[in-house]
Amino acid sequence: MKNVVIKNIERADAAAVTALGELGVATVHEAQGRTGLLQSYMRPIYAGARVGGSAVTALVHPGDNWMLHVVGEVIRPGDIVVVALSSPNTDGMFGDLLATSLMARGARALVIDAGVRDVKDLTEMGFPVWSRAISAKGTVKATLGSVNVPVVVAGTLVTPGDVIVADDDGVVAVAREDAARILEAARRRVAAEDEKRKRLAAGELGLDLYEMREALAKAGLVYVDSPDDL
Amino acid sequence: MKNVVIKNIERADAAAVTALGELGVATVHEAQGRTGLLQSYMRPIYAGARVGGSAVTALVHPGDNWMLHVVGEVIRPGDIVVVALSSPNTDGMFGDLLATSLMARGARALVIDAGVRDVKDLTEMGFPVWSRAISAKGTVKATLGSVNVPVVVAGTLVTPGDVIVADDDGVVAVAREDAARILEAARRRVAAEDEKRKRLAAGELGLDLYEMREALAKAGLVYVDSPDDL
Amino acid sequence: MKNVVIKNIERADAAAVTALGELGVATVHEAQGRTGLLQSYMRPIYAGARVGGSAVTALVHPGDNWMLHVVGEVIRPGDIVVVALSSPNTDGMFGDLLATSLMARGARALVIDAGVRDVKDLTEMGFPVWSRAISAKGTVKATLGSVNVPVVVAGTLVTPGDVIVADDDGVVAVAREDAARILEAARRRVAAEDEKRKRLAAGELGLDLYEMREALAKAGLVYVDSPDDL
Amino acid sequence: MKNVVIKNIERADAAAVTALGELGVATVHEAQGRTGLLQSYMRPIYAGARVGGSAVTALVHPGDNWMLHVVGEVIRPGDIVVVALSSPNTDGMFGDLLATSLMARGARALVIDAGVRDVKDLTEMGFPVWSRAISAKGTVKATLGSVNVPVVVAGTLVTPGDVIVADDDGVVAVAREDAARILEAARRRVAAEDEKRKRLAAGELGLDLYEMREALAKAGLVYVDSPDDL
Amino acid sequence: MKNVVIKNIERADAAAVTALGELGVATVHEAQGRTGLLQSYMRPIYAGARVGGSAVTALVHPGDNWMLHVVGEVIRPGDIVVVALSSPNTDGMFGDLLATSLMARGARALVIDAGVRDVKDLTEMGFPVWSRAISAKGTVKATLGSVNVPVVVAGTLVTPGDVIVADDDGVVAVAREDAARILEAARRRVAAEDEKRKRLAAGELGLDLYEMREALAKAGLVYVDSPDDL
Amino acid sequence: MKNVVIKNIERADAAAVTALGELGVATVHEAQGRTGLLQSYMRPIYAGARVGGSAVTALVHPGDNWMLHVVGEVIRPGDIVVVALSSPNTDGMFGDLLATSLMARGARALVIDAGVRDVKDLTEMGFPVWSRAISAKGTVKATLGSVNVPVVVAGTLVTPGDVIVADDDGVVAVAREDAARILEAARRRVAAEDEKRKRLAAGELGLDLYEMREALAKAGLVYVDSPDDL
Repeated sequence: MKNVVIKNIERADAAAVTALGELGVATVHEAQGRTGLLQSYMRPIYAGARVGGSAVTALVHPGDNWMLHVVGEVIRPGDIVVVALSSPNTDGMFGDLLATSLMARGARALVIDAGVRDVKDLTEMGFPVWSRAISAKGTVKATLGSVNVPVVVAGTLVTPGDVIVADDDGVVAVAREDAARILEAARRRVAAEDEKRKRLAAGELGLDLYEMREALAKAGLVYVDSPDDL
Repeated sequence: MKNVVIKNIERADAAAVTALGELGVATVHEAQGRTGLLQSYMRPIYAGARVGGSAVTALVHPGDNWMLHVVGEVIRPGDIVVVALSSPNTDGMFGDLLATSLMARGARALVIDAGVRDVKDLTEMGFPVWSRAISAKGTVKATLGSVNVPVVVAGTLVTPGDVIVADDDGVVAVAREDAARILEAARRRVAAEDEKRKRLAAGELGLDLYEMREALAKAGLVYVDSPDDL
Repeated sequence: MKNVVIKNIERADAAAVTALGELGVATVHEAQGRTGLLQSYMRPIYAGARVGGSAVTALVHPGDNWMLHVVGEVIRPGDIVVVALSSPNTDGMFGDLLATSLMARGARALVIDAGVRDVKDLTEMGFPVWSRAISAKGTVKATLGSVNVPVVVAGTLVTPGDVIVADDDGVVAVAREDAARILEAARRRVAAEDEKRKRLAAGELGLDLYEMREALAKAGLVYVDSPDDL
Repeated sequence: MKNVVIKNIERADAAAVTALGELGVATVHEAQGRTGLLQSYMRPIYAGARVGGSAVTALVHPGDNWMLHVVGEVIRPGDIVVVALSSPNTDGMFGDLLATSLMARGARALVIDAGVRDVKDLTEMGFPVWSRAISAKGTVKATLGSVNVPVVVAGTLVTPGDVIVADDDGVVAVAREDAARILEAARRRVAAEDEKRKRLAAGELGLDLYEMREALAKAGLVYVDSPDDL
Repeated sequence: MKNVVIKNIERADAAAVTALGELGVATVHEAQGRTGLLQSYMRPIYAGARVGGSAVTALVHPGDNWMLHVVGEVIRPGDIVVVALSSPNTDGMFGDLLATSLMARGARALVIDAGVRDVKDLTEMGFPVWSRAISAKGTVKATLGSVNVPVVVAGTLVTPGDVIVADDDGVVAVAREDAARILEAARRRVAAEDEKRKRLAAGELGLDLYEMREALAKAGLVYVDSPDDL
Repeated sequence: MKNVVIKNIERADAAAVTALGELGVATVHEAQGRTGLLQSYMRPIYAGARVGGSAVTALVHPGDNWMLHVVGEVIRPGDIVVVALSSPNTDGMFGDLLATSLMARGARALVIDAGVRDVKDLTEMGFPVWSRAISAKGTVKATLGSVNVPVVVAGTLVTPGDVIVADDDGVVAVAREDAARILEAARRRVAAEDEKRKRLAAGELGLDLYEMREALAKAGLVYVDSPDDL
């Protein structure tokens, strides 16, 4: 595998990227047909962040964060750095100095399938990170990887320029070329949910709201009054 | 296995249920002879909640949350919905719409051996959840399960109507018919601990408070002054 | 294996211990050549604590916390209790009563390769704990272990009197005799990082700050303008 | 929880127990409506064993195998000893001496949610074991448990006298009172599968054999000739 | 996400596919620059199999094996069926009947990121499987997936028609269009290793064979005669 | 941490090392007071091997097997190479070429807290390995570690020259200076077990053989005739 840095990538429309971020992971995941989620072991280092950005990717090796210094040069404001590993690793590849640098270049967040450290500093800086682990384990800078190549991260394929949305529920990727379409679908979903929320809050049953009773009966669900009726 | 919904179940005395909730998981678990705990992978989605309620159970299948819509109809105020899976699964079976519905029906909490999503919303709504995972992964509504049958959830048998107590330490189940007795035992334990806490806070050693020195010596424990005396 | 309590151990200089604690885990781990870290599954029960102390060790068995009562007698103010297990176990070996006792004796924290409970109380008391799990599971007092013997805890050898530093990034151990030297190295590292942080915050690239371009080129890294140039 | 040994339990018809064992785990699990399976982490210590027996249960504590000596007295020929733990543990609670004793009393196998050791000896003796782990870690005999009480083992409720079937696919439990009925259902399933196996071996598609094409089309499955047709 | 079956895919040259299979996973993985490996939790159900084939893919959902019946129709002799899951699942989606069908259609093996059952039968039939788990847990046929779309399986992207090589070391995927080139590189590697193997077997040190001494010294490696010389 | 190779280490008496190997892991672990076991995730790559040897250690970094080439030079016939990692890693650091080299130098086995590959070849060569994983993932040779320094491997401290015993039950380490004493204790244990085995095989209960009835009664164990007597 050749080690390469691709300096320029296409990104989705900036307003669509930001808008997808505001809609959140669950909504965007559903709006694109329940695809694109990273595995659920990817957790935020602090609660409450919600962000959308364009993926700038790095493929790195266990115990080696060299390419995280290379990635800084290709970031554009609004990007999210997405780091994939060539094999499972929890070392602390990223800390407050790298975060300072990425923030200065305009990065909005980090998604890394490895460990991070200085999480107290990162929290105070307001730089959100989704990671596999928190670990202070230091890393070397000895082996090349690549920047801005397609990667599989936490079980999901991410192509540079894809839209990344991350919040307390996890991380989802949207293909760059689908951003506008998924944004539309996500907004329709939100609108539809608002109406349902009101009816459910008023005490209407989901059984009735979603008209499930017939399908349940047809599938064979039996209601009895008490355990004695079994 | 027949798929069934049992509409009416017996519940423990409401005041006892609430009182057990206030005493917390560790105390209740000890008071009933160190039984009833769910596995420790069941974690709250936010810190600080403490609750007691009557178990309404659902048995569901991986990737399918259909029965979570069915369960709403049989909830009574003060219930806790307990969801068991037929095989391990982390999909996000529950979110803010279902929480809105359960809250409207009087449910106090959810305990689910799978994933949940919309955790930021759930936190703001103040609807506490203990789960195996946080995941935005959407689910289908295709396969029947059952409601209000006995289930094994996170390694513990829960019969509908059992008392569920949950807090930052995890989740414990108390058999419905034992609620009053365990409440008494738990209160005695708390009273006894208050006295011990004062003595320990004053610097008295647990060795002396619990009169352990003789048993330790009998078991063969040796004290030496320094590593050089080994 | 003889079961023994060593009553008196040597400790590092108290000021150095405290100063190491203030510098934090990542800095101290790097300052001693990237060694001494406990496995990353050791997590704090609440965010924000940072502490340094002298290790008082206990070796205990799964499901049995007897020696945690013994350890109280040998604690000196400024100590951190470090508990190793003879085999993997997540039982809740430690709660608010033991914390009350340890605090009264001057202990600063607990590091335990098992579970803890009463975490809401511990949080309110401000007694920081790093553990493998949170679990209410009660334990017995039946089998002897040892106090103040060298132990392997979460994959790292800790000798009584070693300096323990713990924060949101995890836990690191420093050999007692190296405390002054590592403190010096850690302070130098912090000073060097301050300068780097300023330059990175101003937008300078890590590539330039660390003078990596030549080494990357020599290793064979290739830059291309766009994916079409591959 | 009172610690008790129940000396006499009811067992299913011996011929039915043996016959269920011969039919194997997958068939029996399906025949009873896809219930009763222990979690898949329960693995045989050697390949090729297939066995059915009546469950004699023991509830033990982490690191303590005392009750495994007690259980020997209540075994009847044809039994399988089922060991549940009060919290997760991988210690080596069982080895060749205990196996010698259980074999002498007529036990057919061991199912244990903990570790075992002497696996080379057990293999040579032909005493099959399904366990969570293989570990030489020794255990104490200090804390009472119970024998022949209902237990949850590897996520499944087992009542003493239930039929246990175990093979290379894992372990399944059948309620004692259902043994005859499930045996009938399992035999019908085997007969039906024989016919299907012949047709599939002759190259008939499952799509046709199970008449799935209409349902697939109705659900919306689309066939295209090549990737270019998407 | 549209649910689709792509009936015809391009495959690599049949002789190259078979030859890659004979060279084995480690050699092929190295020959293509250390890429393409599936995660190491993918294990063979029996030891000793080594196989190469063309990937026919299926994307399925947790607890649902419907598409495994659909895939049979698009198999050509020499194919390997590769099954990806939309979220983690260990259910036993595949057994002897499906294996009978796939064998009859010419499939060489199965690679599935879920569970399989009837492993004793599969072993006797000589149908090799690499899976995440062995489990008898039955599955439903209710939700559509897709056949012959690109999938991420066990952390690796597999496009239909890619070459799959699997043996006791795991599973690796080779892009269809690279098959001939990687076969050449793999053969060169084997030839080079034969020479090295002879020299190492004769007692020559790897240090000398690979001429590492200078690089080690330059990197700072220090040799001392005994621990006393540290 | 200085990177160092210690060329000469003290070893235990060769006959004692071999004899300990023949006695096996469980016996040796018990004979030294239930200490020295590596975690149970360390598994043999093939069943049936049993070996004893003197530990030659290597400390390496994730994804980097450089020091495994260095270690060959310091091996003496009868040694077992023990590889510790600076952080968790499953890469395939060792294969048939390294095994050929180690065998040529007289090594008896490998114990590695990472992955290995070429396991079919290693099995045919009869070179036993105990590892954390089987993985074909290739590694680099970029970062120095150390050889023949004390290491923590799979949770246990191993000092160069310690006796390593490994078999199907796992791996145990014996301090070099204790080898003769532990060998004596292990032989006594085996002799005592032979007598017990005969009595148990004849049907005598462990309860009687170990004279447990009085202690059980004193601890409060209650016998009842049937479930109805509870």
